[in-house]
Order: sequence, then structure tokens, then C-alpha cells
Amino acid sequence: MPSVFHSERRVEFCETDAAGIAHFSSLIIYMEQAEHALLRSLGLSVSAANATSRDDSLIAHCSWPRVKVECEFKSPAKFEDVIALQTWIASLGTKSVTYQHRLSIGNAIVASGTITSVCCARVNDKLSSIEIPSQLRELLLPYVA
Amino acid sequence: MPSVFHSERRVEFCETDAAGIAHFSSLIIYMEQAEHALLRSLGLSVSAANATSRDDSLIAHCSWPRVKVECEFKSPAKFEDVIALQTWIASLGTKSVTYQHRLSIGNAIVASGTITSVCCARVNDKLSSIEIPSQLRELLLPYVA
Amino acid sequence: MPSVFHSERRVEFCETDAAGIAHFSSLIIYMEQAEHALLRSLGLSVSAANATSRDDSLIAHCSWPRVKVECEFKSPAKFEDVIALQTWIASLGTKSVTYQHRLSIGNAIVASGTITSVCCARVNDKLSSIEIPSQLRELLLPYVA
Amino acid sequence: MPSVFHSERRVEFCETDAAGIAHFSSLIIYMEQAEHALLRSLGLSVSAANATSRDDSLIAHCSWPRVKVECEFKSPAKFEDVIALQTWIASLGTKSVTYQHRLSIGNAIVASGTITSVCCARVNDKLSSIEIPSQLRELLLPYVA
Repeated sequence: MPSVFHSERRVEFCETDAAGIAHFSSLIIYMEQAEHALLRSLGLSVSAANATSRDDSLIAHCSWPRVKVECEFKSPAKFEDVIALQTWIASLGTKSVTYQHRLSIGNAIVASGTITSVCCARVNDKLSSIEIPSQLRELLLPYVA
Repeated sequence: MPSVFHSERRVEFCETDAAGIAHFSSLIIYMEQAEHALLRSLGLSVSAANATSRDDSLIAHCSWPRVKVECEFKSPAKFEDVIALQTWIASLGTKSVTYQHRLSIGNAIVASGTITSVCCARVNDKLSSIEIPSQLRELLLPYVA
Repeated sequence: MPSVFHSERRVEFCETDAAGIAHFSSLIIYMEQAEHALLRSLGLSVSAANATSRDDSLIAHCSWPRVKVECEFKSPAKFEDVIALQTWIASLGTKSVTYQHRLSIGNAIVASGTITSVCCARVNDKLSSIEIPSQLRELLLPYVA
Repeated sequence: MPSVFHSERRVEFCETDAAGIAHFSSLIIYMEQAEHALLRSLGLSVSAANATSRDDSLIAHCSWPRVKVECEFKSPAKFEDVIALQTWIASLGTKSVTYQHRLSIGNAIVASGTITSVCCARVNDKLSSIEIPSQLRELLLPYVA
């Protein structure tokens, strides 16, 4: 059984739309923020710029551009609803990670989806994909389904 | 061959992120906006509230909550880049439409993806899915692949 | 001395821009969210739609469109910075409230500003300004400078 | 009489909120985008990164962090409304520019406001305010009220 990372997010007013509910893009952004919170909980950052003070230089220079998003929206979320997010890793490739997210309010599933990002490093001012450093891979392993 | 709806979108500064590129959620939002522009070009609106002055009351009360998004991101877009969007309909179901979008800058594909929405009407203050009205279906038909 | 409402907000990645810092509009939105959190802490909601279950029907139907924003930006905030927000009421008029916000990171002021909203009620499907109900006014009084 | 820069902006769905209107932060963002469009019309960019191909290196390295925003909101804008923006320069200081914006729909003023930015250049990886280069100042002069 993988570890599941739990976080919470209240729907803010500016994230709602004229249909009276959280705009679907807000739900996708919540998923991204849960991924960032998971990384923070491991002492990491999704942003290479934020990682420069960490001691493992290999991990420090990883950047994670998104290459794929798949989401399904099941029921609406409204202003001030508190959404519970469950996040784990659906697949951990050599160079990529696919995070899986489930958003719910009580027993109602609001949305579920995956976001895939690729491990990159900046070489000669250009981002190139690299193998996920082994130290980083080990930190992520408990969340792999 | 389906008709393809063409639109353009300049990347705005507030849509970029600290990685120096358009945030991936902005690209998904561009896709949604292209769908809305396609509907406008047909004299329709994605919002039931905006449709009240139209004469076909059946069409006028359709609302289109999104149920699924699938996107792939191929190359980055930067501030002030002008993205060309091609939009058509990948599948037209009884109650749902799946729009297909391709975003490019010159010859480079920036992103491609689909957004599926379900035709709904508000009955007793609750949204319920309905069959796409035939008049509306006919307007969409030329864009079906 | 007025009560000061304290809240915290971490800068999210999608809120940064290509200059590598939180976009100025994000800082304004944080101010709005602090106001909403202050109202929630009083058992209120900025949205009339969210207030229908509260027992005081007068309070329940207040809506608060913004009429004025004034902000100064002093120093940048970056991704994952945690901003401390202090919020109080600079002036409480008959029909309007001006919230004052100060955003800081450690000793550095990030931004300060005011947002003025007007108490409105929906009459015949149109928003009209009304006097702030006395029960609501009493709840806000401790925060008035 | 100053030159006035004219632009247009349609309210997008994701920019509306649960009150059924364009969120006030969207109107402020439209103002920023009008400033960027004015600069583009002069062959300039608000982003130093976007200016590297221009021949005047002095202009090319200017960056424009915002230091002040003042806006008043007069009447709501709804989804698919087309807002006309008028932009000019309320004051041109030695190091700063205050842009003035008026947003309207037909005869109705939606919002008006000013955004002040300071001319900066990156020296030793730190932004410092500089005098606005004279070539740039001359390009802006016709828009000064």
C-alpha cells in the first residue's frame, strides 16, 4: 500500500466562476499545489530556484515541467468548501513522475486526475530531461502505488 | 474533413510563472476560451445566462459543465508569444461534446488536448444532463471529425 | 487599539510570474482572501449565497461588491514564501467597510493596502447598497482602527 | 492633449466569479495588459527578457516592477462583455511611470485606475531603480497627460 499525502484546500472566491462553482482549472491547480506540498513535506521543492540552499546539488537542480494532465470532474465545489486532497504516485518512471490526485468533500468525489512531470536540469541555459537522481527517487518511493 | 475553428491568443504576463513560461493551466484555459469563441461564432454562448436573448429557448438554457480534460504539453510558450489555436470536435455524443484543441507557435506544437462537456439544463434549481437539442447539434456538426 | 486579524498565505507556483516573483495581482487577491477569512472567523461569509443557513436573515443577504482598491508594493515575495497578513478595518461607514491589510515576510513589508466594499442586498434581482445591518456592524466594531 | 491608447478585452468565463461578474482582480489585470499592449505598440516590452533582440541595449534591459495600484470599480462587467480600455500616462517621473486606465462598456464606466511602475535594471543579479532612459522617455512622452 502506498503512502498517501493528505492536504486540504478551501475554495476561494476568485476561484469560482459565474456558474457559481470552482472553475475546473482551479481544481487542476489544487492538484498541482498538492504535489508541491508533498515535495515540501520531503524537504524538496518543485522549483530548482528554491532548492539552491539544499545540500544535495543533484536534487537541487531538478526542474519539473508538466507534460500531461488528465482529470475527471465528478461533482461541483463551491466557495468556502474545504476540499480534502489525497495524493500519491501512480507511476515512477526513469525520468518522469505521474502524481495521482483525488479531491473530495465528505463522501463526494469532486475530481480525480493525474499530472505527469519530467525531471529536467538546465544545461547551457536549456532544460533537458535527465534521469531522476537516485536520492530523490528514494524519497518518492513510499508514495508509489 | 471537419471544419476547424481558428483563434489566436497572446500569452499575457500574469499567465507566466517563475519558470519563465506560460503556466500549464493557462494553456488549458486557452483551450476553454477557444471553445467559447467557437460557440460565439455560431451565435451561441457556453453560459445559459448569456443566452437568454436568443430566440431558441431550448438552446438558450443549455449549460456545459466540464467532465474531463486531457492535455499534453510539448513545448513552452513565453510571455508575448502568439499562440495559434485549432479547435474541432473529436466526438459528439447524445449528451456530451469533446472538443479537440491544438496550440502551436509557428511549426512548434505547444500543446494538444481535449475537453469534454455535458449538456445540462437547470430544472428545479439543479443542473441535470439533457440530450443536446437538435438545433444545437446541427450547428456543431460541421466541426465533428 | 483595534483587534487585528492574523492570517498566513504561502505563495503558490501558479501565482508567480516570469519575473520570478508573486504577481502583484496575487498580493491583492491575498488581501481579499484575508478579508473573507476575517468574516468567516465571525461566522459570516462575504457571499450572500453562502449565508443562507445563518439565522439572521438580514446579515444573510448582504453582498459586498468592491468599489475601491489601493495598494503599495514594497518588496517582492517568491514561490513558497509564507506571507503573514494583518487585517483590520480602516473605516466603517454607514454602508461601506474599508479593510486595511499589511503583508510581511519576517521584518520585510511586502505590501500594504486597502479594499473598500459596499454592503448591498439583492432587491428585484438587482444589487442595491443598503445600510450595514446593526448586528453585522457590531461584529465588525472590534476591528475598527 | 495626450495620445490615448485604445484596446479591447472580452471578459472570459474563468475571470468571472460566483457573483456572476468579472472578479475585480480581473479588471486590474486588464489594466496591466493594456499597459503591456501600449508598450508593444511602441516596439517595447515590459519584460527585459523579451527585449533582448531590440537594438537599444539601454531600453532592452529595463524591467518595471509595480509599486502602486489605485482602482475604483463603478459598474459590473459580465462574461463575454467587451470592455473598451483607454490608457494614457498620468505622470512620468524620473524613474517611474503612472499609467491611467479607464474601462467602459458603451457609456458605462466599469472601472478607472492607475498603476505605477518603476524603471529598474538588473545589476549583479539584483533589481535597482534607474532613471528612465531618454530614448524610452521620448517614446512615452506623447501619452503624458
